[in-house]
Amino acid sequence: MPRPIALLTDFGLADIYVGVMKGVLLAHCSKAVVIDLTHAVPPGDIVAGAFQLHGAAPYLPEDTVFLAVVDPGVGGKRKPVCARAGGRYLVGPDNGLLWPAATRLGEPEFFHLDRPEFWLPHPSSTFHGRDLFAPVAAALAEGTPPELLGTPHPDPVTLTLPIPRLAGNRLLGEVLWIDRYGNAITNLRPMDLAQRWDDPACAVFSMGGEELGTPHTHYAAVLPGAVLVLAGSSGYYEIAVRDGSAANRLSLSRGSLVAVHAGS
Amino acid sequence: MPRPIALLTDFGLADIYVGVMKGVLLAHCSKAVVIDLTHAVPPGDIVAGAFQLHGAAPYLPEDTVFLAVVDPGVGGKRKPVCARAGGRYLVGPDNGLLWPAATRLGEPEFFHLDRPEFWLPHPSSTFHGRDLFAPVAAALAEGTPPELLGTPHPDPVTLTLPIPRLAGNRLLGEVLWIDRYGNAITNLRPMDLAQRWDDPACAVFSMGGEELGTPHTHYAAVLPGAVLVLAGSSGYYEIAVRDGSAANRLSLSRGSLVAVHAGS
Amino acid sequence: MPRPIALLTDFGLADIYVGVMKGVLLAHCSKAVVIDLTHAVPPGDIVAGAFQLHGAAPYLPEDTVFLAVVDPGVGGKRKPVCARAGGRYLVGPDNGLLWPAATRLGEPEFFHLDRPEFWLPHPSSTFHGRDLFAPVAAALAEGTPPELLGTPHPDPVTLTLPIPRLAGNRLLGEVLWIDRYGNAITNLRPMDLAQRWDDPACAVFSMGGEELGTPHTHYAAVLPGAVLVLAGSSGYYEIAVRDGSAANRLSLSRGSLVAVHAGS
Repeated sequence: MPRPIALLTDFGLADIYVGVMKGVLLAHCSKAVVIDLTHAVPPGDIVAGAFQLHGAAPYLPEDTVFLAVVDPGVGGKRKPVCARAGGRYLVGPDNGLLWPAATRLGEPEFFHLDRPEFWLPHPSSTFHGRDLFAPVAAALAEGTPPELLGTPHPDPVTLTLPIPRLAGNRLLGEVLWIDRYGNAITNLRPMDLAQRWDDPACAVFSMGGEELGTPHTHYAAVLPGAVLVLAGSSGYYEIAVRDGSAANRLSLSRGSLVAVHAGS
Repeated sequence: MPRPIALLTDFGLADIYVGVMKGVLLAHCSKAVVIDLTHAVPPGDIVAGAFQLHGAAPYLPEDTVFLAVVDPGVGGKRKPVCARAGGRYLVGPDNGLLWPAATRLGEPEFFHLDRPEFWLPHPSSTFHGRDLFAPVAAALAEGTPPELLGTPHPDPVTLTLPIPRLAGNRLLGEVLWIDRYGNAITNLRPMDLAQRWDDPACAVFSMGGEELGTPHTHYAAVLPGAVLVLAGSSGYYEIAVRDGSAANRLSLSRGSLVAVHAGS
Repeated sequence: MPRPIALLTDFGLADIYVGVMKGVLLAHCSKAVVIDLTHAVPPGDIVAGAFQLHGAAPYLPEDTVFLAVVDPGVGGKRKPVCARAGGRYLVGPDNGLLWPAATRLGEPEFFHLDRPEFWLPHPSSTFHGRDLFAPVAAALAEGTPPELLGTPHPDPVTLTLPIPRLAGNRLLGEVLWIDRYGNAITNLRPMDLAQRWDDPACAVFSMGGEELGTPHTHYAAVLPGAVLVLAGSSGYYEIAVRDGSAANRLSLSRGSLVAVHAGS
């Protein structure tokens, strides 16, 4: 049985790009099991794609091949790469997209995909997802080792998701993602607070000078319509509104600042 | 071969939530066959999700495991449950979501999912789809009986989709759903009309005092652009516009009233 | 192992229509491997669906069954058909939708699907995707020959995608599709230019009297924000903006005219 293949792209679902890529996967690995993580990464937004891939990766089977394409530099100087990390493989452009997930999964080894005999013949310069990355991911799923598909690439492009910083007696984080419900996922984790205060549960969150209170564990801990801070399922604190949208209520967007200070 | 697993959620497809849930399914049932019913249930809209699950359920294979998550009360007092009905299983929150589909498929038996040894370790309080429902659905797909996954739950939350009522010599229904084409699917069925009038085909539909005529069998029975009443594929009458949107033309939305009276 | 089944519809993903169709496929072919090409064809837009199916078809495995439903005439006089072409099958309404893909794959033979014993019992007049096309596609995937599913249909409805025309010393094409990135895919191919000029790479594109320059091979060949003409991955020239949307910048839509003349 081949390794499962998990897809993340900025292709959207209105065009045929995802379907065509799946067709190539299946043509090269007829028993491929393909999972869509998301195809709604904002066009060209490498940081958003890296954040989403990093969040999803640990929940996929331990032998997964991740095929991720957010690739505004396709056809130019950026290299096509794959990484081996923690038993998984990650395939995509060398622009930082794979880095946070790869380093979360293990100590990654990168390979420059420079063996055209594993690609579609006559590859285009604008759709490496179809012509290069899909046949390579299918080969990895079938058991071909990355050593055959490319050569070691010791200096991949790295990308670090924004991390919290100290400002006086406050910890300053930011919103990394707004989800479908309007929950604002921050870059603050319980461990970030625990490094500074004895009891993270007493830490007080605020945005734009307005206090949002201390963290709760679930939405129904507050009344419908109330704003709350939540230790979210992603491992990060989230700003939410019970039965509503925090993003709409508080006019939040990616990059909005969140402060935390000690409770009294 | 495991039972197929059919998914219905309000997670949307822009976040990684669906992909992560599928990753967990596959990690626990490597040969899982997963079908997406829809992930576009309006956030937290249990009635809409129940209506869609009820409509789809009979068309899935007879051994399907339905995994449905529209769960605004996640982490609070609502219980996680599964139901066995007509050879299928349904897994989700005990908030009414599963009820219309379960009772359509058979005489349901419910179980409270209270055996954490079948969940992911350290389950979150906000993403039971990933941490609790997915591993349980995978276990059901693999053949684990619900008796091992929980304890009998004789009093599940019930939910009844709106039913038509009589008002003088008229039958009053309402719009339950607007589909992608702008067709307005009502809660009126041919059998509701047959109980009252000898020939449902002569019954006259109206909305807001405006007569829409008697039912047709297909769109092309009227001229392009014309409004028509249709005996729809869902088993309910629909208000439609040939090659157009009835919702836009007639300003329809969920809850819009539809009246039926005897033809002359 | 059954043939893979590739889906293309105008059903959207917010309703359960696609999920129900997949349920029927799986109920009739329990090992079906189903690929979604797209379900976002604009409602009833046969030309758009035909263009997308034509573009995707060559990349799917060589034994694929294509199930395509953009079917505003469902239940009326249009016939349900299947085509055999180049080893693949295509199933859908006889309204031209299948024609460009079928003729691209081979010399198609069409069959009128007139054997109700292969359909769901009591088929509706409004959802042949579920009641007729899905069980027929499942039968084809399982190996049933089209000769058993219908009778030869020598006069299928044909549909020709718009082709470029000559106007004086210029070649006039048009925009066939706007993709998620705002790239405008034209109906002009390198071979169309090569028929007229020795070196297509010197041909100059223009829209609305404004020159867009000669074709490039990849986005990064120009500066961020610049407009460029690109020999796209679909085999057609595209109008694009590096790291931006050509459709927004140049107010392009399907049908926008593109002219090409000899370079100096």
